Amino acid sequence: MCKDLNITKPTLIIDKSKCLYNIKNMVSKAKRHQLQFRPHFKTHQSLEIGQWFKDYGVEKIAVSSLTMADYFSKEWNDITVAFPTNILEIETINSLASKITLNLTVENSESVLYLKKHLTHKVNIFIQIDVGYGRTGIAPYNIDDVNFLLEELDNSPLMKFVGFLSHSGHTYKCDSEECIKDTHSRSLKVINQLKSNYHSRYPNMIVSLGDTPSCSVSEDFSGINEIRPGNFVFYDLMQYQIGSNTIKDIAVAVACPIVAKHKNRSEVVIYGGGVHFSKDRLIENGITIYGKVVEKTKNGWSKILANTFVKSLSQEHGIIKVPIQDFDSYRIGDYVLILPVHSCMTVDLMKNYLTTEGQQISTLI
Amino acid sequence: MCKDLNITKPTLIIDKSKCLYNIKNMVSKAKRHQLQFRPHFKTHQSLEIGQWFKDYGVEKIAVSSLTMADYFSKEWNDITVAFPTNILEIETINSLASKITLNLTVENSESVLYLKKHLTHKVNIFIQIDVGYGRTGIAPYNIDDVNFLLEELDNSPLMKFVGFLSHSGHTYKCDSEECIKDTHSRSLKVINQLKSNYHSRYPNMIVSLGDTPSCSVSEDFSGINEIRPGNFVFYDLMQYQIGSNTIKDIAVAVACPIVAKHKNRSEVVIYGGGVHFSKDRLIENGITIYGKVVEKTKNGWSKILANTFVKSLSQEHGIIKVPIQDFDSYRIGDYVLILPVHSCMTVDLMKNYLTTEGQQISTLI
Repeated sequence: MCKDLNITKPTLIIDKSKCLYNIKNMVSKAKRHQLQFRPHFKTHQSLEIGQWFKDYGVEKIAVSSLTMADYFSKEWNDITVAFPTNILEIETINSLASKITLNLTVENSESVLYLKKHLTHKVNIFIQIDVGYGRTGIAPYNIDDVNFLLEELDNSPLMKFVGFLSHSGHTYKCDSEECIKDTHSRSLKVINQLKSNYHSRYPNMIVSLGDTPSCSVSEDFSGINEIRPGNFVFYDLMQYQIGSNTIKDIAVAVACPIVAKHKNRSEVVIYGGGVHFSKDRLIENGITIYGKVVEKTKNGWSKILANTFVKSLSQEHGIIKVPIQDFDSYRIGDYVLILPVHSCMTVDLMKNYLTTEGQQISTLI
Repeated sequence: MCKDLNITKPTLIIDKSKCLYNIKNMVSKAKRHQLQFRPHFKTHQSLEIGQWFKDYGVEKIAVSSLTMADYFSKEWNDITVAFPTNILEIETINSLASKITLNLTVENSESVLYLKKHLTHKVNIFIQIDVGYGRTGIAPYNIDDVNFLLEELDNSPLMKFVGFLSHSGHTYKCDSEECIKDTHSRSLKVINQLKSNYHSRYPNMIVSLGDTPSCSVSEDFSGINEIRPGNFVFYDLMQYQIGSNTIKDIAVAVACPIVAKHKNRSEVVIYGGGVHFSKDRLIENGITIYGKVVEKTKNGWSKILANTFVKSLSQEHGIIKVPIQDFDSYRIGDYVLILPVHSCMTVDLMKNYLTTEGQQISTLI
C-alpha cells in the first residue's frame, strides 16, 4: 500500500469496504425497526460518499449548516438542517427552499417570527427538543414555548410543522454499551411523553432522534420515526471509547510521513499535526492520546500497534510514542497510518481523501 | 461594524491597524538588536498580509511546510522551511530550489544522505538543535551527530551549511514574562555554547532562534543572528496567558451568529464550533475556556466582556456562558466577536478573512 498510494504528505485514507459495511449495517437496522433513515452528512461532507448511501436506497439526509445543505442540494432534494436556524442566512434558506424540500430546525420564537416575515418559499419545520444533552432545544416541560411555536407555525402559509427533533449528545459521555442504552432510553421516555401530548393533533408528526452511539448499540426505538446518525460512516477512537464500535469498524486513517526519530525518548516525529487531526483527544489510564498507530497491510490496515500512540500535536508536528523494541522499524521517508480520535473533525480539516484503492474523493471545501 | 460587514456565518475578522502595529514593533526590535528578521508565515498563511511585511522592508520568511513554501514562492524568493525535511516531497524541494533560495532544516543523517543523492539544485541547510523543547532537533551535546552532518554537507556540491536553527517551544509552558525570559536565556546559553565550537570553522554561520514569547518580551539576543516569530502578527488568548502580549494587541476575532439562547443556564448558542476555532483551550481558575467575547465598537472591538467566554465547542456549535445581567443584550440574529485561544489554528481553519474595513483577505487553501 505504502508505495501504491504515493503518499508524500499527510493524507486521509478511507477503507471503502469498511465504510460500505458501516452504511449497510445502519440501513438494515433502520429497516428492521421501520425507521426513516436520514444519515447526517456532516461527517464525510462528500457528494461521492453520498452516492454510496444512494446505492443503498437512502434518499433523505441531515446536515449541520446551510453551507453543507447548499453543497449537497446538487444531488439531494430532501435535506434537514439539524442546527438552530441561522436567520442571518435567510437568502440561502430561500434559495434552497425554492429548489428542494428544506427542513429547518427551530427552538425559539425570534427565529420563527423572522422566518414568518421573510420566507419566500415553503419549508418544513422541526421543533428542537432538549432530551437531556443541554446544548440546544426547548426543555420538554416548557409546553408553553412549544405551543407558542406551534401556533405561529400553524398560522404560517410557508412553514409546516413536521415534528420534533432531538440529539442525545450526552451519550458521548458514555464508556459502555450499557451507559449508551440507559441514556438513550431516558431520551426515548422524554420525547415520547411530549409526543403523546401532540399525537392526536398532529397524527403524521415525525419524531427524529438518533446519535451514532444510540443507533449503533440500541435495539429500542419505540415511538421514534427517524434516526440521524452521522459519525458511524467512519467511526473513530472516541466512538470506540464510548462503546459504539469495534476498532475494525473504523474506516478512516491518516497517512503521515516520518520526518524525525529520537531513540533516547523512543519517539517518532511525523508530518501530521493539529491542522490535520484537530486537537480532540482521549484520556486512557491518565495518558492523553491524539491518535493511535495501526499496522499497514497490503490492502489497508489491520490492528492497532500496542502502546503506540500520538502523544502530542503542534501545528504541523505530531509526536508518536513507540515501544523501544519497535523503534528501529520506523524509517525516515516511510509513513505511518493513524486512526483519528474524532473523524468528523479530521475529515473537515483534511478535506479531500484517498481510498485504499487509490480513488480520489472530493469534499465540500 | 455589525451591519457594515454583512456577517451571515462565522467570519474571521482582522484589525489591520493592530496587525500593522504588531509587525512594526517586531521589525523595530529586530533592527534595534541587529537581528535578521525572518517572520514565520504559518500563522497568517496569506500573500496579502505578506505584502504588509514587505512594506516594512521584510524580505525573508519562514514557513512550516513545503506546501506553504510553494504558495509563498509566488512572491518571496528566500524561504526557510522550519520543519524537519520531509524527503517524500523531494519533487517539490527540487522545483522550489530551482527558482528561489530554499533553506531546509535537517536533524538526521537519513535526510541528509537522501538529499545528497536526489537534489538537483542548490539548497541552504540549517541543522536543527534542540535547545530544551524536546520536540525535534539534535541534542546540543550530541557533537558526533552534528559533526557527521557537517561532514556530509561540506562534501556535498548542492547543500550548503548556513547555520543552526532552534525553536524554544517550551516558552509556551510559561505564564509570565520572567518565565519566558528565563527559558529564553537558557536556550541562548545552550546555542551559544554550540556556536562557540564551530565559529572559527564557519565564521558566517547563522544562529536562528526566536519564538513569539521570547521575541515579544526578551531584550537579550546575544549570539543570535536571526529571529523567526510567527504568532505575534495576530497574537491570541494563549499568548496573553503565556505573557507575550496584552489583550489590545490581539488582531483577530471570529464573528459568530447567535442562533439560540437559554436563560435558565444563562448561555448563548452561536454558530461557531470546533471547525472554526479548533479545540485549543485555556484553563483559567479551573475553568476551561475556548474563546472570550469582546465588546463590539464602530471600528472593530474593544475590551473583553467580564465573565463571558466560550465554555464548549462541538462541530458547528459554540456555547457562551454570559453573566445573567447581560443575557438580554444578546439577540438572535445578531453576532458576537470572539477572541480565539490559538490564532494559528483558527486562521488555518477559517481560511479567508475580512478586515474591520471590509477588505477580503485570501489565504493558502
